[in-house]
Amino acid sequence: MSRAGQQTFIYDNPPAIAAHASIVGPKEGRGPLADWFDTVLSDDLLGQKSWELAEMEMVRRCARDAICRSRLPDEAVQAMLGGDLNNQIIASSFAARTLGMPFIGLYGACSTFVQALVIGSALISGGFLENALCVASSHYCTAERQFRFPLELGTQKPPQASRTATACGAALLNGNGDGAVLRVTSGTLGRVIDLNITDANHMGAAMAPAVFDTLAAHLSDTGRTADDYDLIATGDLGWIGRDLLLALAEAAKLAIPPEKLIDCGASLFYQAQDAHAGGSGCGCVASVSCGWLMKRMEAGEMKRLLLVGSGAMLSPTSSQQGQSVPGIAYAACIERSDP
Amino acid sequence: MSRAGQQTFIYDNPPAIAAHASIVGPKEGRGPLADWFDTVLSDDLLGQKSWELAEMEMVRRCARDAICRSRLPDEAVQAMLGGDLNNQIIASSFAARTLGMPFIGLYGACSTFVQALVIGSALISGGFLENALCVASSHYCTAERQFRFPLELGTQKPPQASRTATACGAALLNGNGDGAVLRVTSGTLGRVIDLNITDANHMGAAMAPAVFDTLAAHLSDTGRTADDYDLIATGDLGWIGRDLLLALAEAAKLAIPPEKLIDCGASLFYQAQDAHAGGSGCGCVASVSCGWLMKRMEAGEMKRLLLVGSGAMLSPTSSQQGQSVPGIAYAACIERSDP
Repeated sequence: MSRAGQQTFIYDNPPAIAAHASIVGPKEGRGPLADWFDTVLSDDLLGQKSWELAEMEMVRRCARDAICRSRLPDEAVQAMLGGDLNNQIIASSFAARTLGMPFIGLYGACSTFVQALVIGSALISGGFLENALCVASSHYCTAERQFRFPLELGTQKPPQASRTATACGAALLNGNGDGAVLRVTSGTLGRVIDLNITDANHMGAAMAPAVFDTLAAHLSDTGRTADDYDLIATGDLGWIGRDLLLALAEAAKLAIPPEKLIDCGASLFYQAQDAHAGGSGCGCVASVSCGWLMKRMEAGEMKRLLLVGSGAMLSPTSSQQGQSVPGIAYAACIERSDP
Repeated sequence: MSRAGQQTFIYDNPPAIAAHASIVGPKEGRGPLADWFDTVLSDDLLGQKSWELAEMEMVRRCARDAICRSRLPDEAVQAMLGGDLNNQIIASSFAARTLGMPFIGLYGACSTFVQALVIGSALISGGFLENALCVASSHYCTAERQFRFPLELGTQKPPQASRTATACGAALLNGNGDGAVLRVTSGTLGRVIDLNITDANHMGAAMAPAVFDTLAAHLSDTGRTADDYDLIATGDLGWIGRDLLLALAEAAKLAIPPEKLIDCGASLFYQAQDAHAGGSGCGCVASVSCGWLMKRMEAGEMKRLLLVGSGAMLSPTSSQQGQSVPGIAYAACIERSDP
């Protein structure tokens, strides 16, 4: 069976996660997950002349780290699926230019990494690709000046704002998964959901309805409940968005035990680091999945994880025109199989 | 077989093109293909308050036109794949918000429509979707002020510049294709190719190398030659880019009879309309495919078409930082089966 219910893909040939890599910036490298990430940058310019070039270089390095770990020869990598927050997703496409494999550009805002896992897994399970590199990144400095204000202004943020993570995560999916213990077993598409949040600083509120919609669809489509998962990890709802998700679930009588629900963005920084509502950005869920969650699964701590990445599909232009902030969320189920 | 060669997908269950729709702006509606398009707008604001809202409305209407023609009930449409040139692809995502089905956001610049056909067809052939709506749009006014200059400035363009088309095309792919005569039978991914063109106005030169790369890969992967196709239609290389493609092919001893090669962008406007190198934008290949080429195939004029959409993966930021313009191209083979 390849399809379940409304919007979920069941992978008859679930691809293995053959390798993963994560890179984070200095601030992220002083947070609670510091010791888990593969690389913590000391220089968030990565020796480059601009923030955009820095983010491109971060993507390139992270992709290369994952490829090296997979032991696949470079020329054997058949596609890169990914995106980022930069206009025209230049961090991903320019990295793809250097890396050289076919590139499938995606955009789901901060959900892009999970979107890549879902689409990449379908292409592998369907026999179109033997492997696929799924990558997503974000950088505090590229995002701030594109979406909000120049850094030099020192503009204050409200408490509900999240902080775009300087981070990248890459996972190499392989249809031939000998020896790998993690597989992507199902994926759920997202609908664009908008409950009229107009505060462009309140990403948690804007995305929580989409996370609820996709999570509910995934559980309904698979016939499961939250109890069937060891952990449900949202991407970057943040502290406030997480509470809103639980409230939406309660109102719909969908049981989500709070102790099973974590948020990658809320896990990324200590409160004392003043990241307000928590980390966000495409690289948030990507780095925390690859750096922390997948490693915990490989260590045997969990058998079944549901990753629900979400994105806010606004642009500065849409916000300036007074539009509300639509959200979208993708879900991917990762399972450990004991050898 | 689902995979051929380096980067081509062969669809074991080739989806039918169950319906298509096209909308173009007033200038496009005075060009050589005027009578072919389903809708020619008299008001390129579509009654909206901003150009961005206009483009969102154009996408919504075009998508609805295709759905209506397919006779599928609204709730039966399982996914929308698409993108546009607006930052954060807001025309597509905001239209998806209104339309309500799951949304897979893509970005390949002006190649996005063909990218949607390739990925959508794979998801249908692989059994993950029963149908998929592939849409892409562009609007002269949203593109000009985002990529270049405010319209009110009346800035001159050099001769090699193309003109972003105000246009949208939508094709509804259906795995259950009873009665439909056109199918998408194969698709080829693109690599990001950059031969160091730094003139951000010369999209033809920036993209020709990528078109050549993907076209050569498609022919090699399928074991075919250009003679196996009734027509090869590039997206928006324009007049100059087409010549460059032929030159690249000749240098590589890849035979492409010039009479078999057309360009959607070069076909969209009369020379007298002063569109310089020709039309461009995501909506160019989308509208010309859906409005003209597919109809010609359905009328029996052609049996096998190769559509090669290309995109220039620059952003204003990358150009302003002195970066060259990388290109990418996707190919989709559309074939007519006689009932």
